[in-house]
Amino acid sequence: MTTAELHALLQQVAGGTIDASEAERRVLDALRAQPFENLGFARIDHHRALRQGFPEVILGLGKTPAQIAAIAAEIVGRGSTLLVTRAAEAAFDAVREVVPRATYYADARIIAWRQEDVMPGKGVILIVAGGTADLPVAEEAARTAELMGNTIERLYDVGVAGIHRLLDARARLDAARVIIVVAGMEGALPSVVAGLVSAPVIAVPTSVGYGASFGGIAALLGMLNSCASGVSVVNIDNGFGAASIASLINHL
Amino acid sequence: MTTAELHALLQQVAGGTIDASEAERRVLDALRAQPFENLGFARIDHHRALRQGFPEVILGLGKTPAQIAAIAAEIVGRGSTLLVTRAAEAAFDAVREVVPRATYYADARIIAWRQEDVMPGKGVILIVAGGTADLPVAEEAARTAELMGNTIERLYDVGVAGIHRLLDARARLDAARVIIVVAGMEGALPSVVAGLVSAPVIAVPTSVGYGASFGGIAALLGMLNSCASGVSVVNIDNGFGAASIASLINHL
Amino acid sequence: MTTAELHALLQQVAGGTIDASEAERRVLDALRAQPFENLGFARIDHHRALRQGFPEVILGLGKTPAQIAAIAAEIVGRGSTLLVTRAAEAAFDAVREVVPRATYYADARIIAWRQEDVMPGKGVILIVAGGTADLPVAEEAARTAELMGNTIERLYDVGVAGIHRLLDARARLDAARVIIVVAGMEGALPSVVAGLVSAPVIAVPTSVGYGASFGGIAALLGMLNSCASGVSVVNIDNGFGAASIASLINHL
Amino acid sequence: MTTAELHALLQQVAGGTIDASEAERRVLDALRAQPFENLGFARIDHHRALRQGFPEVILGLGKTPAQIAAIAAEIVGRGSTLLVTRAAEAAFDAVREVVPRATYYADARIIAWRQEDVMPGKGVILIVAGGTADLPVAEEAARTAELMGNTIERLYDVGVAGIHRLLDARARLDAARVIIVVAGMEGALPSVVAGLVSAPVIAVPTSVGYGASFGGIAALLGMLNSCASGVSVVNIDNGFGAASIASLINHL
Amino acid sequence: MTTAELHALLQQVAGGTIDASEAERRVLDALRAQPFENLGFARIDHHRALRQGFPEVILGLGKTPAQIAAIAAEIVGRGSTLLVTRAAEAAFDAVREVVPRATYYADARIIAWRQEDVMPGKGVILIVAGGTADLPVAEEAARTAELMGNTIERLYDVGVAGIHRLLDARARLDAARVIIVVAGMEGALPSVVAGLVSAPVIAVPTSVGYGASFGGIAALLGMLNSCASGVSVVNIDNGFGAASIASLINHL
Amino acid sequence: MTTAELHALLQQVAGGTIDASEAERRVLDALRAQPFENLGFARIDHHRALRQGFPEVILGLGKTPAQIAAIAAEIVGRGSTLLVTRAAEAAFDAVREVVPRATYYADARIIAWRQEDVMPGKGVILIVAGGTADLPVAEEAARTAELMGNTIERLYDVGVAGIHRLLDARARLDAARVIIVVAGMEGALPSVVAGLVSAPVIAVPTSVGYGASFGGIAALLGMLNSCASGVSVVNIDNGFGAASIASLINHL
Amino acid sequence: MTTAELHALLQQVAGGTIDASEAERRVLDALRAQPFENLGFARIDHHRALRQGFPEVILGLGKTPAQIAAIAAEIVGRGSTLLVTRAAEAAFDAVREVVPRATYYADARIIAWRQEDVMPGKGVILIVAGGTADLPVAEEAARTAELMGNTIERLYDVGVAGIHRLLDARARLDAARVIIVVAGMEGALPSVVAGLVSAPVIAVPTSVGYGASFGGIAALLGMLNSCASGVSVVNIDNGFGAASIASLINHL
Amino acid sequence: MTTAELHALLQQVAGGTIDASEAERRVLDALRAQPFENLGFARIDHHRALRQGFPEVILGLGKTPAQIAAIAAEIVGRGSTLLVTRAAEAAFDAVREVVPRATYYADARIIAWRQEDVMPGKGVILIVAGGTADLPVAEEAARTAELMGNTIERLYDVGVAGIHRLLDARARLDAARVIIVVAGMEGALPSVVAGLVSAPVIAVPTSVGYGASFGGIAALLGMLNSCASGVSVVNIDNGFGAASIASLINHL
Repeated sequence: MTTAELHALLQQVAGGTIDASEAERRVLDALRAQPFENLGFARIDHHRALRQGFPEVILGLGKTPAQIAAIAAEIVGRGSTLLVTRAAEAAFDAVREVVPRATYYADARIIAWRQEDVMPGKGVILIVAGGTADLPVAEEAARTAELMGNTIERLYDVGVAGIHRLLDARARLDAARVIIVVAGMEGALPSVVAGLVSAPVIAVPTSVGYGASFGGIAALLGMLNSCASGVSVVNIDNGFGAASIASLINHL
Repeated sequence: MTTAELHALLQQVAGGTIDASEAERRVLDALRAQPFENLGFARIDHHRALRQGFPEVILGLGKTPAQIAAIAAEIVGRGSTLLVTRAAEAAFDAVREVVPRATYYADARIIAWRQEDVMPGKGVILIVAGGTADLPVAEEAARTAELMGNTIERLYDVGVAGIHRLLDARARLDAARVIIVVAGMEGALPSVVAGLVSAPVIAVPTSVGYGASFGGIAALLGMLNSCASGVSVVNIDNGFGAASIASLINHL
Repeated sequence: MTTAELHALLQQVAGGTIDASEAERRVLDALRAQPFENLGFARIDHHRALRQGFPEVILGLGKTPAQIAAIAAEIVGRGSTLLVTRAAEAAFDAVREVVPRATYYADARIIAWRQEDVMPGKGVILIVAGGTADLPVAEEAARTAELMGNTIERLYDVGVAGIHRLLDARARLDAARVIIVVAGMEGALPSVVAGLVSAPVIAVPTSVGYGASFGGIAALLGMLNSCASGVSVVNIDNGFGAASIASLINHL
Repeated sequence: MTTAELHALLQQVAGGTIDASEAERRVLDALRAQPFENLGFARIDHHRALRQGFPEVILGLGKTPAQIAAIAAEIVGRGSTLLVTRAAEAAFDAVREVVPRATYYADARIIAWRQEDVMPGKGVILIVAGGTADLPVAEEAARTAELMGNTIERLYDVGVAGIHRLLDARARLDAARVIIVVAGMEGALPSVVAGLVSAPVIAVPTSVGYGASFGGIAALLGMLNSCASGVSVVNIDNGFGAASIASLINHL
Repeated sequence: MTTAELHALLQQVAGGTIDASEAERRVLDALRAQPFENLGFARIDHHRALRQGFPEVILGLGKTPAQIAAIAAEIVGRGSTLLVTRAAEAAFDAVREVVPRATYYADARIIAWRQEDVMPGKGVILIVAGGTADLPVAEEAARTAELMGNTIERLYDVGVAGIHRLLDARARLDAARVIIVVAGMEGALPSVVAGLVSAPVIAVPTSVGYGASFGGIAALLGMLNSCASGVSVVNIDNGFGAASIASLINHL
Repeated sequence: MTTAELHALLQQVAGGTIDASEAERRVLDALRAQPFENLGFARIDHHRALRQGFPEVILGLGKTPAQIAAIAAEIVGRGSTLLVTRAAEAAFDAVREVVPRATYYADARIIAWRQEDVMPGKGVILIVAGGTADLPVAEEAARTAELMGNTIERLYDVGVAGIHRLLDARARLDAARVIIVVAGMEGALPSVVAGLVSAPVIAVPTSVGYGASFGGIAALLGMLNSCASGVSVVNIDNGFGAASIASLINHL
Repeated sequence: MTTAELHALLQQVAGGTIDASEAERRVLDALRAQPFENLGFARIDHHRALRQGFPEVILGLGKTPAQIAAIAAEIVGRGSTLLVTRAAEAAFDAVREVVPRATYYADARIIAWRQEDVMPGKGVILIVAGGTADLPVAEEAARTAELMGNTIERLYDVGVAGIHRLLDARARLDAARVIIVVAGMEGALPSVVAGLVSAPVIAVPTSVGYGASFGGIAALLGMLNSCASGVSVVNIDNGFGAASIASLINHL
Repeated sequence: MTTAELHALLQQVAGGTIDASEAERRVLDALRAQPFENLGFARIDHHRALRQGFPEVILGLGKTPAQIAAIAAEIVGRGSTLLVTRAAEAAFDAVREVVPRATYYADARIIAWRQEDVMPGKGVILIVAGGTADLPVAEEAARTAELMGNTIERLYDVGVAGIHRLLDARARLDAARVIIVVAGMEGALPSVVAGLVSAPVIAVPTSVGYGASFGGIAALLGMLNSCASGVSVVNIDNGFGAASIASLINHL
């Protein structure tokens, strides 16, 4: 039973088109079903959507294509939306065998197939990115947020060294309900953005840079030490994580 | 002009108790006023409340009591709510001279005086803390969130080593609109909490611990690497920062 | 003389089937034999089994296939069980030339051939793993513990973000005499497991993760700072080391 | 109901001095009692002894004397053994008010009062320490292990720079069932000890040293990278943690 | 012979008021004089002004008041301007004994007495600072630059979280010949400033902050990774170093 | 409108060959033109030259050849000098398609084509390098400085371990207006150079070294801690950044 | 039996003033004596002088005055030279009670009393120090080397920023048999010194500095990465360690 | 003029076979020759042998085969011994073109050709290595020391986990004049060795290990924090550096 199915059921109860005892029976049946599927090497969490509003997502990193495909088949078989992050081309080839209608977003390294179990978000999630090299992470955030039911917009290549490019987009910044800011190097962009708006800002440091960027540490520290309030931070290159919390917020 | 005043004014216009041209004049006057006050050593940002929903907050760290008191007087004089974080007793003595009705929350190291310029949040912000030693940071978050207009609840001493204490509070976790999780040592609590709920989780690592906790680095890294989705992180011991973004979310 | 041979000899003395002076002679002969073999590039420690209960193990890392094969031949020639860790396929090809009955466990990167010199452990060693990507390390621990004479069980993919998967396995956790917990990312699993059981927990951080996991540092620090008691930690990705101490404990 | 009480009860059932239904009633009563006590700032875990073989321990670090005393009174009131680690003299003064018979081990920074709820361990736990400056940590381990019911022995000032001092104690090393090795600076002692014995070695790095010891990091890394098998490691200066797992092992 | 004396001498030669051979003699005499004074614990570099345009400066850190006073007396005795950085009040007391006209700038921790040996710089050096807590470092830079002969201006409390405060000062930024930017926390200010101007920007990270600011590392890394060109960086809290190079540039 | 065009125009106004109102019209037209070009994945900053004295530079790192070529075409089409750093051979192949006269400096990893928009610098920028392995970074600095209109000289392989090689070049050091010092390993060269001259020294740490050089950290820290005044530092391997600020200084 | 006594004895045998069998008896007696004294908290290594040429040295750090005094009494009682490093004034007060003729070198933090058991070194050990603040460490090295029987010389305040001060002392550098170079900040001095001489250079990084010196890490890394050959390094601030190895070399 | 030629010349003067004025002339001629050769990309230091006892050595890392060959030809052409470290096979191919009699030691990554300019060392340099994987570094040390004129011996695979292997070699340890100890992982071997001997010990950490060995940091820190005196340390994997200083010592 997905969140959407549960929502519909309760609406029917409230509307009188289904009676309470029948609804109770259906919910209990759903709860009695085993809440996870044991594939031996993985246990799929089928109640994730109930608890967290979106079905279990597959982190492709460190899994073989065969493992990814097996988990994907289980998830889709239950009627849930499929989302695989950090997925290489080879993983997509394996998934396509079992989920033929899946799509591969190469720039975002995402495999996905959306089903009817996702609730729409309320406002716009704006993804702001500092430089061209930050795009793969920004796209991971954008595609994830979209799949989770949100309307998204993109504002790319607006680094702090040319502040007028950012100020020029004031209206779009003000219109967003949640803002994801993706930046590498010194990671200063979230501070400037958060100082301009009242929307919550989720900051994503990227590993873009060289030398003393230390694979994203400089950007991460910059964001954690932001002198602006209203900023919180996810792991380096974690576009998915930023979109997850942004989507939860946008569904409030 | 605070957000609350603006809100009231526009309600009056909509309600017909004030006419549009008069309202326009008042708004323009407010905008024409210098948006910040230059005290020489500090420039107070009086439009912060308009942009970000809460007036400028004073970070006490590294400022002298005299400097804090001078800025506090300016803020209060404009009709804004006063909030000083990381404030020592000596700072409170200085502030009391100029803002006699200010309160000092010693456990949270906060000086505050609430005025009528704060809009109420929509749901409950739950502050979860791992251990007794994390309380100063948890209280900084709790008092800040309260001053920003939110209803708060506390759930303290529910560390992951006795997981039943947390599971026992399932209902309170489910009821929260936003959850702030404060934890030191290994920083595992946000992952477990986020796996149980659909509310966004703001994680605050604390410097509680010794040895390889490295002043909170262990907890910080644990939270950044959370295997649960729906978690984002603020700086070590930054209860204020967590409350700021939680409040923005709770006002959406 | 292996531990098993010594044990058998002393049983015979106690049982009267061999007399004490003959036993003394045999033990002295064994002790007089050179305690290590000098291959020039390596000195094989043939008394290791007497001192530590298991013959010398070959760490494959940084050794050429030819070096590994030469040491392996010496060990097997003395009647000892062979265990090579961090072994690539090429090393197995070289070892097979000199130890034709050796087996290669590709998932665990282990070459092994068990002889009759290993004493059985007393209870079950349970290997718990957080995610699918942690499996190579978990398998290194599992295979090592098995070769050292222990009964092992596996409990995989029970990360803290879906805590019910772990709680569901309460009975198996309680039944184990020693528990090895393998986890990457935030490394929170050992704390939760140790809070549930009275068995000693050996924690193995893995290098699984990205960004601020810093190749396993986040998981390592998380485990070292565990707020649960009864946890100790081995090096990142050191499944072998965890199994070694778990086996020593399980033989007590 | 402590482990010891449970043990006694079941012995009585087996011995026929109490009947099964009465025993069942008592056990159920114990289980029905609230498993933790909520003091507001702390939740005391009264089932800890059942789950982990020793009642909840108070980490003094970061708690006020008043908080420590309040928790101590609760624990002792339930008939459990009291153990406070990292306790300053002031904490002892507060605890003595409510637990008059408590003892303070100044060298180990421990407050304790043993009750009848602790099961004896099976063999000897040997505490080995590298230098005089490591004694506070070694004593924290020694006192903790003793309070947890174990016979302990001490072997102090046997650093690797004078290896004969350690070799001279071969017999005592061989006689121990579990060995705790406490060392600062380069942290090499556990490797040498583990190479000599078949007992499991729990290594405790200390913050003793200066310069590039980095507050114990050098010793910690040295121990994690031990080339000897049979070693696992706890946090820097964590004598308590080492004793906890050593005691669990010694009770197997 | 100071730079100023040399300059004056050569002007006189060019102007015909002194003849070339006499000038040559004086220059040779100066060069023949021992280029440094050996006080046993210190060797004062009297040719520093000739080589680098400013006499030797005393870093107060780690020197006793007596040592500082002895070196100060030597420098002033040679007719050179005195500059002591990182000087505590006690050092000033000692210096005043031997250099009665010296001044102490407490906010900048500087002891100074200017003599006639300093050449004027050409334009304005602007010192920009992010927050009130950065003032001690900013003042060290300001006082140093002033003593080295430069016209300075201050622009304080213009952090990136309220970008309009900085943009409001556009004209003053454009008018500066060299800009020193002092900032703690995320250290983003130099990037934004450098993106607005064509003057060289010398960035000074400060240790202002807490938690993951790591004593200024976050700000330092942010500045080193600046996405704006025209920025170079000095050590954390090194206001003196920034002023030194800014002054060399402003004398070109 | 480039800086050079603006300069020429104003000279004509001053000289009377063009009248003020016509000049005003042309400047306004230039300012009215959109200050950046939005390519979707990148926004080219066409006013950069006006603000900072040199047109926008393309950092090749993390951009695809197609992206680089597209941005390059835009820049050249506006009449600006092209400079691409960190450019691989493949990027040059793509750029040559759209900018046929572009040159590739393989040793410096730079693609460039100089147009008439660059103002000449005033003195010599000397590039000093410690060892042969530092040459790629030194050449990046040299080529960049040259393209920005400066006269450059090179002084290579003058490491501090053979100090006479450096002292031998005293005259060339003294003649430079700005000095860039490129060094890896211990990064001591800038301190020695700065102690000899009165020119500002821009230090560039390189990632040359092994072991405890940690990819340039040792050199970076060495330079930041320079005991000589007059030194500031750019990111590891950032020859471009050093040349940028050196060029700004040399144009003062 | 000290090295000196052994030396004298063998001279007498060779000279015929004592016969071989008597000498043999005395040596055997010495060897039969327990090679260390067990004080409970410390085991004094009385054969250290035989093995390493100097009796056991007491590292004062982390030991109580009473512990230091007890060990000192034992060492002096055996006729060995006393050397306590990192000794506070309070430790000296305690030692003086039991070793009335002991001397305290406050600048070097050393307590010492030389007896007749030390062999003279062959040449001069030169201690070179970069700055006045490095003197405590330099003095620890100087006093230690002196007590170990070496002729020492001092060359202080010769930092690399004024290279002529060092070059001026060429003759003294050339005359030394071993050179100890003590330097903080960027730690460049050993490279320059080693490039000038053929004596082995022992480099001692100091914790002198601030900001990115990170308590001596910058100097340590600089020295480890020295581009000059003939340099090896000891721990930060370890003047004693440098003198120890320098003395061993000077006794060869 | 090499050290050997100078030595011979002075012997002839002392012996009367050459007169003083002729000798003076020859020495002056040598000194007048340009002390380094400028190849454009490199300046060869031909007086290195005079200053430091061995001609300039080529660090192969980061140099092209063509650059290495060109420098090699210059060095050999002057009659100096050739030593190239960190040399790949390709570099050897290039060197052989210009120095046909050069040898390649693949295990040590060294290209060499010894000429008659090297003075013999006095005693034995013993190279001790912990494990088979440390051999490349140990061989770099061994070959370098040999080329510098020293008698060397090898003692390999004597790690601290099997301490009897080391104790078994006591006689060889005692016989060495200088000892180089090469070890990875926890780097404990130098402490144990230095505790057994009176020879100076040069410790070389290697990058052998995984996980928390952090590419040799664990071994490096272990060695810097050695509790034994008489140990100094060189960079990670720097077998050459260890041999250089060991050779200087062995020539004293």
